[in-house]
Amino acid sequence: MVAMKGVILISTYPDEANALKAARGAVDSRLAACVNIAKIRSIYRWEGKVEDAEEYLALFKTTEDSLPRLKEFISSTHPYKVPEMVSIAMDSVSERYMAWMVESISS
Amino acid sequence: MVAMKGVILISTYPDEANALKAARGAVDSRLAACVNIAKIRSIYRWEGKVEDAEEYLALFKTTEDSLPRLKEFISSTHPYKVPEMVSIAMDSVSERYMAWMVESISS
Amino acid sequence: MVAMKGVILISTYPDEANALKAARGAVDSRLAACVNIAKIRSIYRWEGKVEDAEEYLALFKTTEDSLPRLKEFISSTHPYKVPEMVSIAMDSVSERYMAWMVESISS
Repeated sequence: MVAMKGVILISTYPDEANALKAARGAVDSRLAACVNIAKIRSIYRWEGKVEDAEEYLALFKTTEDSLPRLKEFISSTHPYKVPEMVSIAMDSVSERYMAWMVESISS
Repeated sequence: MVAMKGVILISTYPDEANALKAARGAVDSRLAACVNIAKIRSIYRWEGKVEDAEEYLALFKTTEDSLPRLKEFISSTHPYKVPEMVSIAMDSVSERYMAWMVESISS
Repeated sequence: MVAMKGVILISTYPDEANALKAARGAVDSRLAACVNIAKIRSIYRWEGKVEDAEEYLALFKTTEDSLPRLKEFISSTHPYKVPEMVSIAMDSVSERYMAWMVESISS
């Protein structure tokens, strides 16, 4: 198993256009190897009220080394005042997929 | 980084109405800050048969402290005999998002 | 809490038919208790180009013991040259759901 650690960074966007723009920006600038985007419905508390809104969930697949720069990119480009940025550790990654991630991100 | 730990609790529901009811209940009673709901197709083994059903995946975003009460809420209100309740650790959470989660849950 | 550890194995497929085939195969052969499939849009780098494609995300719910055989099954049947196989640790699992997973996988 390649030593580098993989990470999934989760964020949410108000619409598909914003999610796609962030995803393309992250992959273009080699901060993420891949971004999966799914349409979701979100229930959340904001300024004292419980909101119900359509959103888009974005799963940025990256490496531990690139995570700080990816977070910087997402927070500086995100349309929300308080964007979600939650990272989940990849417990194991198949060797060839990890090699592809490292190659897509760092070179 | 705020010391409190974040958690994603995953469950699945038979339809959107049940998922929304649980999500609103959890956010209303400050057991979760946010719930993302996605339409999925599930293949699973139940009573000896392999089933293929439309379901709704619910990702409850909460804190480690509130996880036991959220689990209690979900299991006592869930329509399934054996509801899925799987928690995933949030490895890192952006400071402002974590502060918002803590404020939405505990106060 | 049952001692066995639960795992979510994440992979992606080019279309729903391939995802369903893998899901049925894994559940039929007791390598996974349940598979959730969601339609996604993926942005990724492949052979120097940034691609934008519809895909299907598959979340295989299994146990730590069965993970190696599930990986073997996925890699030997996957249509991609470099399939994504990323595992995420289940931090906690409700006891009855874990018992159902163990029963659906091993017996």
